[in-house]
Amino acid sequence: MSHAVASKTDPGRFLEDFRIGEEIVHATPRTVTAGDVALYTALYGPRFAVQSSDAFARAIGYRHAPVDDLLVFHIVFGKTVPDVSLNAVANLGYADGRFLAPVYPGDTLATTSQVIGLKENSNRQTGVVYVRSTGRNQHGDPVLDYVRWVMVRKRDPGALLVEQSVPELPDCVPVDRLGDACPIVDAAAYDTTLAGSPFRWEHYAVGERIDHVDGMTVEEAEHMLATRLYQNTAKVHFDQFAQAKGRFGRRLIYGGHVISLARALSFNGLANAFHVAAINAGRHVAPLFAGDTVYAWSEILDKQPLPGRDDVGALRVRMVATKDRPCADFPLAEGEGYDPAVILDLDLWLLAPM
Amino acid sequence: MSHAVASKTDPGRFLEDFRIGEEIVHATPRTVTAGDVALYTALYGPRFAVQSSDAFARAIGYRHAPVDDLLVFHIVFGKTVPDVSLNAVANLGYADGRFLAPVYPGDTLATTSQVIGLKENSNRQTGVVYVRSTGRNQHGDPVLDYVRWVMVRKRDPGALLVEQSVPELPDCVPVDRLGDACPIVDAAAYDTTLAGSPFRWEHYAVGERIDHVDGMTVEEAEHMLATRLYQNTAKVHFDQFAQAKGRFGRRLIYGGHVISLARALSFNGLANAFHVAAINAGRHVAPLFAGDTVYAWSEILDKQPLPGRDDVGALRVRMVATKDRPCADFPLAEGEGYDPAVILDLDLWLLAPM
Amino acid sequence: MSHAVASKTDPGRFLEDFRIGEEIVHATPRTVTAGDVALYTALYGPRFAVQSSDAFARAIGYRHAPVDDLLVFHIVFGKTVPDVSLNAVANLGYADGRFLAPVYPGDTLATTSQVIGLKENSNRQTGVVYVRSTGRNQHGDPVLDYVRWVMVRKRDPGALLVEQSVPELPDCVPVDRLGDACPIVDAAAYDTTLAGSPFRWEHYAVGERIDHVDGMTVEEAEHMLATRLYQNTAKVHFDQFAQAKGRFGRRLIYGGHVISLARALSFNGLANAFHVAAINAGRHVAPLFAGDTVYAWSEILDKQPLPGRDDVGALRVRMVATKDRPCADFPLAEGEGYDPAVILDLDLWLLAPM
Repeated sequence: MSHAVASKTDPGRFLEDFRIGEEIVHATPRTVTAGDVALYTALYGPRFAVQSSDAFARAIGYRHAPVDDLLVFHIVFGKTVPDVSLNAVANLGYADGRFLAPVYPGDTLATTSQVIGLKENSNRQTGVVYVRSTGRNQHGDPVLDYVRWVMVRKRDPGALLVEQSVPELPDCVPVDRLGDACPIVDAAAYDTTLAGSPFRWEHYAVGERIDHVDGMTVEEAEHMLATRLYQNTAKVHFDQFAQAKGRFGRRLIYGGHVISLARALSFNGLANAFHVAAINAGRHVAPLFAGDTVYAWSEILDKQPLPGRDDVGALRVRMVATKDRPCADFPLAEGEGYDPAVILDLDLWLLAPM
Repeated sequence: MSHAVASKTDPGRFLEDFRIGEEIVHATPRTVTAGDVALYTALYGPRFAVQSSDAFARAIGYRHAPVDDLLVFHIVFGKTVPDVSLNAVANLGYADGRFLAPVYPGDTLATTSQVIGLKENSNRQTGVVYVRSTGRNQHGDPVLDYVRWVMVRKRDPGALLVEQSVPELPDCVPVDRLGDACPIVDAAAYDTTLAGSPFRWEHYAVGERIDHVDGMTVEEAEHMLATRLYQNTAKVHFDQFAQAKGRFGRRLIYGGHVISLARALSFNGLANAFHVAAINAGRHVAPLFAGDTVYAWSEILDKQPLPGRDDVGALRVRMVATKDRPCADFPLAEGEGYDPAVILDLDLWLLAPM
Repeated sequence: MSHAVASKTDPGRFLEDFRIGEEIVHATPRTVTAGDVALYTALYGPRFAVQSSDAFARAIGYRHAPVDDLLVFHIVFGKTVPDVSLNAVANLGYADGRFLAPVYPGDTLATTSQVIGLKENSNRQTGVVYVRSTGRNQHGDPVLDYVRWVMVRKRDPGALLVEQSVPELPDCVPVDRLGDACPIVDAAAYDTTLAGSPFRWEHYAVGERIDHVDGMTVEEAEHMLATRLYQNTAKVHFDQFAQAKGRFGRRLIYGGHVISLARALSFNGLANAFHVAAINAGRHVAPLFAGDTVYAWSEILDKQPLPGRDDVGALRVRMVATKDRPCADFPLAEGEGYDPAVILDLDLWLLAPM
């Protein structure tokens, strides 16, 4: 063997490898197909009519059934993992996420990221990287844009960062930046009986809380199938031999799996909130493991018409997921922190027909 | 939070909420795709050539490979769950089920049900609801029609039923009502070698019993993937946290999962009985749990030509599934009841080339 | 029941049922779809850009993204099981395997085999059957051709074999027989950034060893979903009730599942070796069971240009998979045999852009 040959495997970036302003082109472009959609249905059981039925989607103005927004999110996100979070300690949060164009089976998605912030922790062992990631289709049109930040290890605690700064991020996507991924909809043609609920945008009240009632237990095979489908390569989800010696002794479930479970459970109460227009904020409060059962509840934080549109309106929804804890009493805080059952705290803009 | 806001979640119907003659339009229409077909293959391993190969299906007269009859059944059935059986104690039986048109990938299925019977039990806590459910494609053409009856809880034991009656149901679908979902087939072009067995309709004898030999163990992840694929929301299949405190302490496997397993196993002995034309009767004799191994055997109860057709003939087949019990000796009765290993007793009309 | 009726189930062939030179037409033709591709991605997590993206594949000269070579292999292989290896004791090896045409979603695959060797073991209880199997598409064009040999039981130890002989098989497919399944590629249009690695054919050195780093734990549900997807009916993979009394007490994982896991893991180090052109040799050294974690490493055994082509070059790669044993030190031999952690020893020709 020639020792002069460059190492062919990628160890991933450490904190000092990032530069503010730098643009990262991620591998691997991925064509989304009806096969991915079927798997997504099998993994989470979503029943939103627009994504489930070509006939329903066409009747209201889509070309045909679009791909579930969160399936798009997971695929766009998955591509960033080898470059951004292979040496991550934790996925800290999301902000300013917007869906920008519908994605249909046959579209090919690719992702780029820009490093928009970098901050070393006081221990000098780790720091936080902020990236704005953009998913684009085969025409180069952006379909999703969002910010996430992760805690990443340094390779060398003594390394110095060229530049540090923390970006200012909006608490919430403004209403006039919502709706690009939702064509003008014929709200009269939106059949609420077929969609599974009589409640349109106008029936929801700010402050209203909804227990989504049902629970879903997660198996190892399921979250691994999902995470591989998204071509997300983070080792903590797959390698039990290594994880057995780790902090939890178990494989960690990809946080996005919890987001999709909560979203699917939320059909029971939010059946007509068919489109995720924006991810205002999101936090994985605690890890989920196989064998746990996920429940969810939502609170309507705000409701707004979309400027210049009277087909759909926006509901700002705080969606909370728990494990092994039904949500009839809307568990959230305990003392100064979260109720120990809470695993996800998500802030979304959803669109519903008027 | 405004307490005047209507509850957004659906608690499901109780016995006193049904009315004889009432028509229920079920959510959610669902486009069936090649993705669903691939998942169905992965979940059960069926090998019937007509459903497996576009080339084989075209050679005998189909437009291309049709969707497996039981995948159609599960999707049509799944839609009825939120309206009919969310508060069910048990799924008691099926009758008069007929497949009425082939379903191809790209078709969108929707279901309506008519309440055709209602009968309170003497304990006044529960009763039986009979529904005739019809699945239709995007053109409004019926593709499947069947009756099932379920035991449903009353919300209020004191509630009175407006009208009670038990429908008369045929023991068996008459032969002249079979075959609508099977185009005229070129039986000479049906290649039995490619299909995996030399035995056509004429080689089966009334009274003949067939041990399907193979066994299939079921995992939690598998039955949950399947049941979500069908958008069947019955909680007993998914929520281990709640089920742990229930009667069995475990998640119950959707009965339809057993039907599909038995049908796939029956390929070994019934390889050319490529189409389920009718479900004459069916009973889930005992529950199945993850970790159990399913076996099956069949008896030819009757065989009939189809009036006016000489391409395919009908085999009336009793298909019995067991758990953890191979079927070389055709287990069925024990004393006045079933052998304790029996979990499914199904009566089908299958079509095979002449 | 009429006892004159022929048994409808197939017991499979025993050693004395094979004849040298005989041609076997296998059931069941199978149309490969985007659904199968999605499942393959979910099961193994491959990220080779050519198979992942229609846009990427078109840019370099494919019609669109081809089906993963090993998915083709498993489907072609699966069909041979009922006729060749239902009574097999062990799958002993592969040789002279060549991929001959790209397979695209929508193509229908069928398999035939020729018996090319037969040799009784000295114990007279078992023997070895050699078959050359050929997968063809709906046009009759061969897409894959390979030899495998299996140890098969005799029905009757006293039975005599009409003819015995052991075929001569090449150690390695010659370079001038490679590349038929790879169209002429525009190597300049092959975007190594999007593909996930800067290393082209010229960057690999003979003798170079690559640890593929990542590990993948396997669950029962996963390998059964995969094996059913391939319509592979070997009972040892599915029937825990029977296997509990067998040699291992557990379900055996289909050896091909390990090949696909190793190939997907090898992306980390061989990202641009996008096409498996040939299987020179292969041996399942030890069985894999659910719960085990698979790792892999590779050695570049040879590298050769393809005669008359300057778009892609061939890398001969020895790919070794282990269980519960990371591969930083390239485990292989121990004493005169294999390291006990090794489960797969595979010799492939891979193509990479120049």
